[in-house]
Amino acid sequence: MPVMAELRARLAELADLSALGGLAGWDQRVMMPPEGATARANQLATLDRVSHELASADEIGEWLEELEGSELDEIDRDIVRVARRDFERQRSVPADLVGERAQAAAAGQATWQTARANADFAAFAPALARNVELARTYAACFKDAARPYDALLDDFDYGVATERIEAIFARLAEGLRPLIAGVGRQPERRAVPVGIPIEAQRAAVGATLRRLGVSEDSWRVDVSAHPFSEAVSRRDTRVTTRYESGSLESLLGALHEFGHALYERQIAPDLERTNLGRGTSMTIHESQSKLWENHVAYNRAFAPVLAEELGRGGHAIEPDALYAELAQVRPSLIRVSADQVTYPLHIILRFELELALIEGGLDVNDLPAAWNDDMRRLLGVEVPDDAAGVLQDIHWSAGLFGYFPSYAMGCLIAAQLWQQIEADLGSQDEALRVAEVGAIREWLAEHVHKYGRRLDTEPLVERATGRGIDVAPFLAHAARVVGG
Amino acid sequence: MPVMAELRARLAELADLSALGGLAGWDQRVMMPPEGATARANQLATLDRVSHELASADEIGEWLEELEGSELDEIDRDIVRVARRDFERQRSVPADLVGERAQAAAAGQATWQTARANADFAAFAPALARNVELARTYAACFKDAARPYDALLDDFDYGVATERIEAIFARLAEGLRPLIAGVGRQPERRAVPVGIPIEAQRAAVGATLRRLGVSEDSWRVDVSAHPFSEAVSRRDTRVTTRYESGSLESLLGALHEFGHALYERQIAPDLERTNLGRGTSMTIHESQSKLWENHVAYNRAFAPVLAEELGRGGHAIEPDALYAELAQVRPSLIRVSADQVTYPLHIILRFELELALIEGGLDVNDLPAAWNDDMRRLLGVEVPDDAAGVLQDIHWSAGLFGYFPSYAMGCLIAAQLWQQIEADLGSQDEALRVAEVGAIREWLAEHVHKYGRRLDTEPLVERATGRGIDVAPFLAHAARVVGG
Repeated sequence: MPVMAELRARLAELADLSALGGLAGWDQRVMMPPEGATARANQLATLDRVSHELASADEIGEWLEELEGSELDEIDRDIVRVARRDFERQRSVPADLVGERAQAAAAGQATWQTARANADFAAFAPALARNVELARTYAACFKDAARPYDALLDDFDYGVATERIEAIFARLAEGLRPLIAGVGRQPERRAVPVGIPIEAQRAAVGATLRRLGVSEDSWRVDVSAHPFSEAVSRRDTRVTTRYESGSLESLLGALHEFGHALYERQIAPDLERTNLGRGTSMTIHESQSKLWENHVAYNRAFAPVLAEELGRGGHAIEPDALYAELAQVRPSLIRVSADQVTYPLHIILRFELELALIEGGLDVNDLPAAWNDDMRRLLGVEVPDDAAGVLQDIHWSAGLFGYFPSYAMGCLIAAQLWQQIEADLGSQDEALRVAEVGAIREWLAEHVHKYGRRLDTEPLVERATGRGIDVAPFLAHAARVVGG
Repeated sequence: MPVMAELRARLAELADLSALGGLAGWDQRVMMPPEGATARANQLATLDRVSHELASADEIGEWLEELEGSELDEIDRDIVRVARRDFERQRSVPADLVGERAQAAAAGQATWQTARANADFAAFAPALARNVELARTYAACFKDAARPYDALLDDFDYGVATERIEAIFARLAEGLRPLIAGVGRQPERRAVPVGIPIEAQRAAVGATLRRLGVSEDSWRVDVSAHPFSEAVSRRDTRVTTRYESGSLESLLGALHEFGHALYERQIAPDLERTNLGRGTSMTIHESQSKLWENHVAYNRAFAPVLAEELGRGGHAIEPDALYAELAQVRPSLIRVSADQVTYPLHIILRFELELALIEGGLDVNDLPAAWNDDMRRLLGVEVPDDAAGVLQDIHWSAGLFGYFPSYAMGCLIAAQLWQQIEADLGSQDEALRVAEVGAIREWLAEHVHKYGRRLDTEPLVERATGRGIDVAPFLAHAARVVGG
């Protein structure tokens, strides 16, 4: 077999194993009977180990060396370039450390669940300290990284530097300050209490997704405690949402997950089963979910569609009342239920704290006080206890440092892409009022999705919008939301 | 790591990968959106290839050599013995031949589906001939097999020789002949037409399985076109059934699959994630499904339970009427809907024909005539066309030769085990009338299930019943059914 074919065959195997892992993870959260958990953890650990061995085997290094000197077409060049990057990163980390991190993450999550239930940070601190220490050790494995946090970021958002995020977040915080100050003094704007029964939500989720293009031929829509989506393959897409009585989160969550899912489906078919055939970064992924959440689901022009489908599901509501509910802005304690304007401030807080934990010498024991100070400073909110404060998110307990920034970067890029869509295609208001999103889907396929991993985060934004990541479109969007 | 630990670690990996393959297969048949099929086939082929490489790697041979000379406890001795067997079998077959068989099986199934729809055997004959030829080539890889069909049998039922099956089936056919001759002349015995609506079936399937011990903590019950069960792990058991209006197949199928599933759940926990931690053969597996189908679901004493649960589901039926329906015996064309008495004759026919294809020089083109002759001879039934005859089963199109005997051997062993259960525990009639099957479950765990692969088919039967496989208990059961 020619060397390029050998490399492609290995990458196809790795893509298949990764898809099987995704499927097993989906099953675990959606279908698996609870007592299957221990065996499933073993099965997933085995799959990880086998994949890691196949991905870091010596022969890949030999293939790459041979290929880097030879004439290749454009796609194969990108395959080899990204394979080299992945291979070097795999080989930089000792297998023992990977195992230790996995164990510390599992133990951390278990400890965190109890600690959060008891609002008892002290019980969680040792497990967190262990995760921080291992993340530092892990970061130190990457000799080329300019600073430790860069190495962590690279796992989620390759090539985006800590300095770049610091600069962007500084401008974002500054721009949001006057907006937040304004809403803080506004009266409660809630128009009507939206006590939407679950059956109406369920009908509206199904019908709205169908109008956006979801069909049973190649999609599933299920329920999970923590909504997510899984691309088992290009034509086997699974989104989940959750239903709580009275809430609109099921609809917002469904459209958010639809955005993630659509990205994976619209990657160029010739990248399938290569190392380029998936979303390029957590940040770009989050920009896709946030685009459908912030700029479609939350859009005043889309409210008639949601209201219509809720009505068909048995819950009559006026589009204006629905929009008033969605457009509320109010600084709050909990990230996952924050409104679209204050949401990025929750992320900035986490970014600053985790950066200080990894690089700045912030002691784990000082974290709750630092959290509470920052909540006061950034959002003007008093934290009543650690369960509603520093213990609210699972990420740090699972050793995930460098992940949070993508949530806010995604919001910014979503706004920037949406601005570009309307610049290229004209206002989408008329189209949204009747849920005609074909043009939006095609624009995203052509300017964002098709590239897969061929372009990293900021080069992709530049290709799509003609400029680097910019906070102005998000701030303009936020000002419109707050302005009413 | 000590060598035994290395071997065990590898076997645990193989068990995990096999479980993931089982999960992906379950998903494919129960959950997957249809357009996911092509990618899923790739994913499963990759998993097979990776597993095959891990199972046949040189180091296993070295570990086994070292271990075969060393002192081991009882379980480790069995692990090494069965690992040697599996390793030798894996290494006997060239990887190319494995691939060719998989391709011929896929092509054969596709051709068969069209040929069956058109009742056109000639269109299927070349694909079947290819599968026969490859099965012969495959059999020839095993130099120790006394005859080719033995080598094929070993894949499904290790250690059971062709001669043994011939002898057993000869006695079985002879014993069934007078019984069948009798029912052939009886009038139609159907007591009432059982037009059971699907909703009542669904309620009865769920409730009956719950009474047998199925709970949501560690089971799922779903729907699939071709009922099957999957043991994703000891505490993650998935059974499926299908619903057709008016039919009792959903209930019979559910109990059949429950039998398969219970077997895997009751294997000794210390065999989990070893090469011994699954059912020992297709024949013993089928004995477990047939035990719950023929001796529980079809049992006159169990009819009140089924009638009660159908009644709760909204379909009132008398236990006697239900039993009369279940106890019908009538020679028929189609294996999968045959009654419990004539069923093994369908298997004997297939066994004789596939043995002649593999060893006896029967030409594929002469197969339909041979089939029709045998149906006349064994069951007294005229075959109207090949769709209802030689084309009815998928097995041969998929290259499965040596598999069919397990269906009838399972019926025989089920009857023999049931006889032993009632000899050891007394009549189960009272217990069945109230669905108290705890004692039956425990007896099976202790005498059959716990061994996993530590005992092969006939030694296991001997251990459980004190004698080898015997046709008398099945014939006695059949005579009772026919006698009414």
